[in-house]
Amino acid sequence: MEIGFIGLGQMGKAIATNLIRAGHRLHVWNRSPAPAQELAALGATVAAEPAEAARGQVLMTMLADDDAHRAVLIGAGVYERAPRGLIHVNLATVSVALARELAALAAQRGLAYVAAPVFGRPEVAQSGKLNVVVAGDPAAIGRIQPLLAAIGERTWPLGSSPERANVVKLAGNFMIACALEAMGEAAALVRAHGIEAGEMLEVMSGTLFASPVYKVYGRLIAEQRYQPAGFTMVLGLKDVRIALEAGQAAHVPLPFANVVRDHFLEALAARRSDYDWAALAEVSARHAGLPSAMNRE
Amino acid sequence: MEIGFIGLGQMGKAIATNLIRAGHRLHVWNRSPAPAQELAALGATVAAEPAEAARGQVLMTMLADDDAHRAVLIGAGVYERAPRGLIHVNLATVSVALARELAALAAQRGLAYVAAPVFGRPEVAQSGKLNVVVAGDPAAIGRIQPLLAAIGERTWPLGSSPERANVVKLAGNFMIACALEAMGEAAALVRAHGIEAGEMLEVMSGTLFASPVYKVYGRLIAEQRYQPAGFTMVLGLKDVRIALEAGQAAHVPLPFANVVRDHFLEALAARRSDYDWAALAEVSARHAGLPSAMNRE
Repeated sequence: MEIGFIGLGQMGKAIATNLIRAGHRLHVWNRSPAPAQELAALGATVAAEPAEAARGQVLMTMLADDDAHRAVLIGAGVYERAPRGLIHVNLATVSVALARELAALAAQRGLAYVAAPVFGRPEVAQSGKLNVVVAGDPAAIGRIQPLLAAIGERTWPLGSSPERANVVKLAGNFMIACALEAMGEAAALVRAHGIEAGEMLEVMSGTLFASPVYKVYGRLIAEQRYQPAGFTMVLGLKDVRIALEAGQAAHVPLPFANVVRDHFLEALAARRSDYDWAALAEVSARHAGLPSAMNRE
Repeated sequence: MEIGFIGLGQMGKAIATNLIRAGHRLHVWNRSPAPAQELAALGATVAAEPAEAARGQVLMTMLADDDAHRAVLIGAGVYERAPRGLIHVNLATVSVALARELAALAAQRGLAYVAAPVFGRPEVAQSGKLNVVVAGDPAAIGRIQPLLAAIGERTWPLGSSPERANVVKLAGNFMIACALEAMGEAAALVRAHGIEAGEMLEVMSGTLFASPVYKVYGRLIAEQRYQPAGFTMVLGLKDVRIALEAGQAAHVPLPFANVVRDHFLEALAARRSDYDWAALAEVSARHAGLPSAMNRE
């Protein structure tokens, strides 16, 4: 298929690479040009501006936050100039409000909007093993199924209203953030009693919590190793903030999200915005007076 | 081996049964007599009082809380009348303070104290697949290894200070309570947006959170099924309370534990003390104005 791809950060670049490898023809655009050039070396066409990428049957985007979506899709005229019938597959974690807004705008322009946010860190994206939660027009989802199969291990269908996939994605990222905070508090508790965080986390992630989230992040927390980041503190804060917004819109108090939000803010105040979001654990270490990556210069 | 066993609740009875099946000779005592009679039918001797069970080489206990330990081990004279050299293996989740106190008392009386708290619900105990975190005198631990192998799938050694095992056990139960709360808040968020809790929890426990805690409790939460309880709200509150105490003793703030403690209290105020602790999730549902097991009469 002929596919436009906008947004070539760590995740976007890995996904676009897998689409090229699966034999699709890509038109790529990125704000900074270097990743687009890397994909050109694999055979992609580099678009001079975002709207130029929106051709063929499908446009995939992986942009960082709601503002970037508004700037590129609306501000830079992508939706305005896209050919009628184009399927816009949004892979990013966006707010429920933005998902509704984009779906409505797409419909006005004769485009199909599919929300397909993905679970998985960059190394998972590279190996084509993402989990994709997808919602939108069933016919459009049917047509993009080969693309989703090329980037993910499994697709989880969630119905025909795109924002349903976004709500589930927000709930999932909120649960990951809670796991990070819980591991961080538990690690501080045991460390303050003379036990290494890794001794405790190894028991947990080897038994009751034997799952990717606790294994992968438990190791980062035990080793206090937060760079290079797979997913930054800034992005973690963004996702918890839009989970809180989704909660507020539907009158759902989320006390764990409030705690996590404040701990992300403290980490940003300590200038740790580019650390992996697993560093949330270091805020609890700092609060307990333990050696913490929040205190290093 | 000749083993005393005190405390035959759901967990204790299952563990004692596996010890009998492994060929050990048991002297059992329980506050209410019915479970002791069941074990007598399997070949155990029923002790007339707690101190009478403390004979042979090993005494295992599985009592509900710190108060029960003080009443039985100290108040009812078990430690006072136990034969010198007896190894007391405490399987329960007790406070760090009590673990230190019992270890010191045992040493005074010429007994060995081994902390061996277990992870796993009653059905896991029945199948002999518990995970045991163990700490105490290495020689004593070596001698009880066949017993631990009879009740658990794996033993996790944590050193020679008994309270180290208790700290890890408290951290683990705190992490489970946090997982319950996170699933509860996430479930409320998606339900308020018209998505069934099970749709979201199935994605999570099938992917990033594919582990016993999220699978087993995710299903209970999705089905809002909290009776019969594997582990009650009362016991959950007890464990979070002693985690908070362990935090206070070492100056470790635990904001997630505070949220969870208050939600357990709200559930008890709604007279749900005998629900499974997975019902913690129902407090978030109630707060969001959703149909909740906290509101049923």
